[in-house]
Amino acid sequence: MPEPADHISLLIVLSGPSGVGKDFLLSRLRASGRPYHLAVTATTRSMRGGERDGVDYHFVSGERFESMIANEELLEWANVFGNYYGVPKSQVVDALGRGQDVILKIDVQGAATVRKLAPDALFIFLAPPSEAELERRLRGRRSETADVLRTRIEQARHELQEAETFDYTIVHHTDATDEAALEIEDIIRHERRRNPPRVVAL
Amino acid sequence: MPEPADHISLLIVLSGPSGVGKDFLLSRLRASGRPYHLAVTATTRSMRGGERDGVDYHFVSGERFESMIANEELLEWANVFGNYYGVPKSQVVDALGRGQDVILKIDVQGAATVRKLAPDALFIFLAPPSEAELERRLRGRRSETADVLRTRIEQARHELQEAETFDYTIVHHTDATDEAALEIEDIIRHERRRNPPRVVAL
Repeated sequence: MPEPADHISLLIVLSGPSGVGKDFLLSRLRASGRPYHLAVTATTRSMRGGERDGVDYHFVSGERFESMIANEELLEWANVFGNYYGVPKSQVVDALGRGQDVILKIDVQGAATVRKLAPDALFIFLAPPSEAELERRLRGRRSETADVLRTRIEQARHELQEAETFDYTIVHHTDATDEAALEIEDIIRHERRRNPPRVVAL
Repeated sequence: MPEPADHISLLIVLSGPSGVGKDFLLSRLRASGRPYHLAVTATTRSMRGGERDGVDYHFVSGERFESMIANEELLEWANVFGNYYGVPKSQVVDALGRGQDVILKIDVQGAATVRKLAPDALFIFLAPPSEAELERRLRGRRSETADVLRTRIEQARHELQEAETFDYTIVHHTDATDEAALEIEDIIRHERRRNPPRVVAL
């Protein structure tokens, strides 16, 4: 009889342009009570209101981040708009080893890097209902300068084109984050059943 | 924005060993009211009680079948236990062209042939709850001679090993055919969303 593939841990890459609501969706997944490991990204950017160190991000100094780069402690890293972002490898490897599904929230460029390292990860793209809505959301952020904002909008437009390289696209309506979280759980349930199993070796 | 892939017709290959209940499940899918095209297999075997010509199978003579082979009118064909079975190509191509999803019920060997012709079809394997249960079901059929039965059981055991070459395996409990039909609809819904789209060209 075919063996159930239920023991295989999935690496779930959740990506999408800036402003699409990845952090908000992740907080819902965190609150869902499911035993996911939500990979915590290390960053040198400043903490925003409501964020918690070690939960939303590991907030580290530039010096510390550069030593993580030098010691190859990062799965991937990038310098985005002057700030470093990177995913510590060990926490992902450890969680997969413990049999947990890992959810990795990452920008679109980072997802492309992870795809090269782990083609059997599950790639989910979070899209806004429209370009106009994404722009509206980005403009609503008070924390950016006009220059950063313009660059972000341009980059977001470009990143929307990358959706087709992902396994799934979920449209994230900000008033329907619960539905998006349920869609992700539904996709995970399906992909777990699917052959061949998505075995990730990092 | 990513375009929805809803307009792409899927070719769904439903397979599994003899006795697993493919016909029964298909009759549920037929009754579901969904606009699937259920491909009707041509066969030279005798009609069983309750079967209808043109619905369950196209019952044809050996001579007619051999002319279909000669004229390359069949997507695939096989001679199984002395009877011909084959899928007329035109009805599948026509239904896909009309934008319908096509469900193709086929034996495991036939599924392997279709996989070569149409690797982007969706392959679903129907498995029994256990080998013992499958044997019990096959023995319950009055229409087979002891020799045919023995061969079928042996072949069914062999075919169960093929499950892992399919995209999904569904365990079919005979008292839960509705659930199996819903699982198939759920899988179809998911695969329709998945990238890259499963474009079948025959």
